[in-house]
Amino acid sequence: MGLFTKDIKTMDDLFIHQLQDIYYAEKQLLKALPKMADKATDRQLKQGFLTHRDETQVHVERLEQVFKMHGADVKAVTCPAIDGIIEEANETAGEVEDKTVLDAALINAAQAAEHYEIVRYGSLISWAKQLGHPDSAAVLQKTLDEEKATDKKLTTLAESKINLKAAS
Amino acid sequence: MGLFTKDIKTMDDLFIHQLQDIYYAEKQLLKALPKMADKATDRQLKQGFLTHRDETQVHVERLEQVFKMHGADVKAVTCPAIDGIIEEANETAGEVEDKTVLDAALINAAQAAEHYEIVRYGSLISWAKQLGHPDSAAVLQKTLDEEKATDKKLTTLAESKINLKAAS
Repeated sequence: MGLFTKDIKTMDDLFIHQLQDIYYAEKQLLKALPKMADKATDRQLKQGFLTHRDETQVHVERLEQVFKMHGADVKAVTCPAIDGIIEEANETAGEVEDKTVLDAALINAAQAAEHYEIVRYGSLISWAKQLGHPDSAAVLQKTLDEEKATDKKLTTLAESKINLKAAS
Repeated sequence: MGLFTKDIKTMDDLFIHQLQDIYYAEKQLLKALPKMADKATDRQLKQGFLTHRDETQVHVERLEQVFKMHGADVKAVTCPAIDGIIEEANETAGEVEDKTVLDAALINAAQAAEHYEIVRYGSLISWAKQLGHPDSAAVLQKTLDEEKATDKKLTTLAESKINLKAAS
């Protein structure tokens, strides 16, 4: 987007900009999740990351569908927030020696990414409804529900197992 | 933290590392919130950012208290996630021409920061309990409750007013 021009003039523009941002974020997560699965030791956590990788692929496709529903080109804009979240995850993981502690750190990192997506999808859905696009709001809602479910699963896994092992 | 040594060996180390991370994040938000208030047009939103700035000051002090409760030095480590969230907020805000649309973008940016904090405080509380520190968990819980309340207020303000104005 332009450094010298102000490209976002309407809520429709803001909606598309945010769509391009989350599209970039989902694509980065698609690359990050298998790496997180590689680093994880707990089998359930490893599998959880791989399952969410497959869900993320569907989220990417749903976003492409929403771009089309709005007559917009499928395009990604760099999202410094998700880049920062992933960078921080790698940095912290690189500093952890113990494998069970690393699992706790990985869950925490994944939840930061989930929450970033939850807030972005939340706004996109709210804006889509406001702009008279209940159809795209419904598509985005499916993804939001899955992100929230993943976040809950991660919390349960952390509190019932991973943190217990890491703190023992 | 070391690039060549692995400094996080235990859950206590991970807890302190995360405390240093969120301490940095709160301090960055302390600087960012008045700037967001300056950019906001809606009076209620402007005031909301300033009120949350004051709350953030208390969050910083609570973190200092928790460092002391754990016998750790009060220290911040760079948190690329919050830097990315703030960078993205500035970039997007810089591209918005219309003032009512800018307000919608600012709320969205603030909620990304809130959710980052919500997930980090959530893990810190869970870890503190696990590590046998219900006292510090209770201090951190107060902040988490305030972050969640702020997030809800922002959603209500967005959906009841800001988005309506921006989309009209």
